[in-house]
Amino acid sequence: YLADLITQQKPQQSLAGKQIVITAGPTQEAIDPVRYISNHSSGKMGYALANAALAMGAEVTLVSGPVNLSAPCSANLIKVESAQQMHAAVMAEIENADIFIGCAAVADYRPSDVQNQKIKKNNQELTLTFIKNPDILADVAKQQQSVFTVGFAAETQDVSRYAKEKLARKQLDMIAANDVSNSSIGFNSDQNALTVFWKEGEKSLEVADKRQLAFELMQLVSEHYRNKHASK
Amino acid sequence: YLADLITQQKPQQSLAGKQIVITAGPTQEAIDPVRYISNHSSGKMGYALANAALAMGAEVTLVSGPVNLSAPCSANLIKVESAQQMHAAVMAEIENADIFIGCAAVADYRPSDVQNQKIKKNNQELTLTFIKNPDILADVAKQQQSVFTVGFAAETQDVSRYAKEKLARKQLDMIAANDVSNSSIGFNSDQNALTVFWKEGEKSLEVADKRQLAFELMQLVSEHYRNKHASK
Repeated sequence: YLADLITQQKPQQSLAGKQIVITAGPTQEAIDPVRYISNHSSGKMGYALANAALAMGAEVTLVSGPVNLSAPCSANLIKVESAQQMHAAVMAEIENADIFIGCAAVADYRPSDVQNQKIKKNNQELTLTFIKNPDILADVAKQQQSVFTVGFAAETQDVSRYAKEKLARKQLDMIAANDVSNSSIGFNSDQNALTVFWKEGEKSLEVADKRQLAFELMQLVSEHYRNKHASK
Repeated sequence: YLADLITQQKPQQSLAGKQIVITAGPTQEAIDPVRYISNHSSGKMGYALANAALAMGAEVTLVSGPVNLSAPCSANLIKVESAQQMHAAVMAEIENADIFIGCAAVADYRPSDVQNQKIKKNNQELTLTFIKNPDILADVAKQQQSVFTVGFAAETQDVSRYAKEKLARKQLDMIAANDVSNSSIGFNSDQNALTVFWKEGEKSLEVADKRQLAFELMQLVSEHYRNKHASK
């Protein structure tokens, strides 16, 4: 009777035995030893997804940029700084994975040259050239087609259009879009709202605590992961 | 007897009644709603200086960039993001101040144009132009000559030469230099070491916990502040 109660309170172990790789947080791209370019990201959503996946029975590798959060003890935590480091860490872990969730706010560009010494501010203007970083999400989707791949799209306008376009172009299985122009959700907030798209449909997950939202998203991932493998 | 013991354990109230403005942490300069340029800085040294000054009897205004630290309750905390915001906050507070300590890692440059919408990554390369931010330390030293002004110099090479040059050029009363090429001290570390310069001399403060070092630096500031005013 007691065991029944405990079982009822635990989330369904629908991801038992699954290997999940999750990226979280921002990346920092060095300009010189003191300056860097980065994206706003607290890492809260990615860490909440790691916790939700663990609670649902998965084995989780969390590849995280610089954040001020405690990682779940039972996750395999890999700390990185730059997008190139994150790309290398994900590619080394992805071969045995069943599901990949790219939740990190990866810097799209990095400085073309990294200065070894601090740039002195002698000039009134400073011009920097940035080059494209590797696309972790697209590379996982292309190179590991058996891995169920979930992306995120943080947009400030035309959120739904950009998200659907990204889903198709990068050949993802699912994409979760949020409108970061709304400051009450996203970034450093504890709350978020997502619209989730897949090839044949979409679902809105209403504003909620990121921990709650993470469970709803992982539930959706779990269902569609099973559908994909059932249909093979 | 008990009162004597308590008094002995308290730091000397050598800054009693003094108004001190301290800047701390990095600034973030927006490129677009998600991207920014910043400097490495945990804010630990500036927050430790605020605590030390309060313990020595001062009234403290702490102007802080984005950090993950708890400010001392008894400080007047002003939160800012950009260098322009920090400059405005300091200038509004400085008129009644006795001492200014510029410990923040202020971004020297900001993007010349801030985009209202997220820049799409359509191009292989991205070129950004940056323009100079206002120089908070130099403006305080120039506009408020009665304020005892202390700067920081984080350098990766020729630390002593750059620090002395900055002391003279910005007409500071004192400058604390640290070599940030040594990764065991500075930035996110809890430890630091400083070499402090003033017009007629210098003093090395050996590697120590930032809280300990903050007390030693505030002691030095307090002595030289009194000398400056005694000699008038």
